[in-house]
Amino acid sequence: MKIIIVGATGILGKKVSDAFAQKHEVIRVGHTRGDVQVDITNETSIKAMFEKVGSFDALISTSGSGPFAILKEMTGDQFKTGLLDKLLGQINLVLIGQHYINKGGSFSLTSGILADHPIAAGIALSTINGGLNSFVFAASAELENGVRINAISPNVVEDSPSYFDAFPGEIPVTMDKVVKAFEKSVLGIITGQVIKVY
Amino acid sequence: MKIIIVGATGILGKKVSDAFAQKHEVIRVGHTRGDVQVDITNETSIKAMFEKVGSFDALISTSGSGPFAILKEMTGDQFKTGLLDKLLGQINLVLIGQHYINKGGSFSLTSGILADHPIAAGIALSTINGGLNSFVFAASAELENGVRINAISPNVVEDSPSYFDAFPGEIPVTMDKVVKAFEKSVLGIITGQVIKVY
Ligand SMILES: NC(=O)c1ccc[n+]([C@@H]2O[C@H](COP(=O)([O-])OP(=O)(O)OC[C@H]3O[C@@H](n4cnc5c(N)ncnc54)[C@H](OP(=O)(O)O)[C@@H]3O)[C@@H](O)[C@H]2O)c1
Ligand SMILES: NC(=O)c1ccc[n+]([C@@H]2O[C@H](COP(=O)([O-])OP(=O)(O)OC[C@H]3O[C@@H](n4cnc5c(N)ncnc54)[C@H](OP(=O)(O)O)[C@@H]3O)[C@@H](O)[C@H]2O)c1
Repeated sequence: MKIIIVGATGILGKKVSDAFAQKHEVIRVGHTRGDVQVDITNETSIKAMFEKVGSFDALISTSGSGPFAILKEMTGDQFKTGLLDKLLGQINLVLIGQHYINKGGSFSLTSGILADHPIAAGIALSTINGGLNSFVFAASAELENGVRINAISPNVVEDSPSYFDAFPGEIPVTMDKVVKAFEKSVLGIITGQVIKVY
Repeated sequence: MKIIIVGATGILGKKVSDAFAQKHEVIRVGHTRGDVQVDITNETSIKAMFEKVGSFDALISTSGSGPFAILKEMTGDQFKTGLLDKLLGQINLVLIGQHYINKGGSFSLTSGILADHPIAAGIALSTINGGLNSFVFAASAELENGVRINAISPNVVEDSPSYFDAFPGEIPVTMDKVVKAFEKSVLGIITGQVIKVY
């Protein structure tokens, strides 16, 4: 299988890429690093990436960021930056990628636990992740040629200790579990699902 | 109670405003019509509205729009327009309004059934509504001074017959039920809830 991993140079993406690379052809895409570069906040850049890579069987996204700020201090501009990055950026990978993906291919996006379990200062990521979860469910019903789509929604991961204090009461999940969730989405048959890793 | 209704001149807003006006002071806000005008896609305009109206006890939003297009033809630019209108617009009413609302006040936003029940060409509104539902849950945990927030999520309403064909199998809900959902949010005690009218 030919698998594009956008965010392959990040904390999640590195482990996910290494796992899939054992049996598949993996194109590691980053923003500044990786085999190929893309800026998911720029549609022209996304199109250029797909033109360069050509047709593919699966796209995994472990990219996208959003601002952390307490509600009282959050500004509309900060919020907008997150909506246009982690939310619209990953959506644009699908809107554009649907015209390049092979029959029976799949999209696997990354949302996150904050959609249902808020933390202080997490308001933008809660909103973004909730939007992504509804997006994949709705998109699964419109995608053609047997193309599937799911969201992987992890808790804070063991490889991100700097986030632990911001997630009181949460038990960091192993990277193995996160990798397995992506395997379920890419190699399995489900579509329109939010695969919760928590 | 002093209640600001943004979208008061629309299909939902008109009936909701008429109901609350029986026992409360209602400020009817529209984009081009109403007692006061605002453009929810413009933060300066939102601030000007709150400055003009002064402190208040409840804000209801029955405003916000998003594009309808099938997934295959949806563009990133169309999608963005919806995210910056119905999603970020209503969020900005809260981000800015939290600094003007009275102690114990409430925000009631409008999401919609498409968050969980997709229809053809509804992908942007599914995403927006899912984002709003997660937003109110997360915001409820950060708002101060006893301020509450809920989302009202209606099915297609009886007063919008032009939408009926786009919602196969859905039974249009009465405007009475929609009004009751807003009453539960504004006059009740719940917070962080998605009040489904379907
Ligand atoms: N870490 C966690 O505990 C955790 C938990 C739940 C969900 N998540 C979600 O998982 C995703 C990845 O998180 P992470 O911790 O692995 O992040 P990370 O270590 O910061 O990695 C980000 C990755 O995305 C790439 N990237 C950054 N900006 C980009 C852009 N504009 N266009 C394209 N690629 C871009 C980076 O490329 P370069 O390396 O080239 O800059 C890198 O490969 C995020 O959506 C995050 O919200 C993370
Ligand atoms: N109709 C339905 O069946 C249905 C079902 C579920 C959910 N909803 C949701 O309910 C909300 C209202 O729907 P509706 O059918 O009542 O819409 P509508 O009849 O088109 O009314 C829209 C209202 O919002 C105002 N408005 C438009 N653009 C605005 C802007 N940029 N800034 C501030 N106000 C603006 C309009 O003011 P002017 O009149 O001055 O232009 C009007 O008061 C929408 O979010 C919709 O998605 C509707």
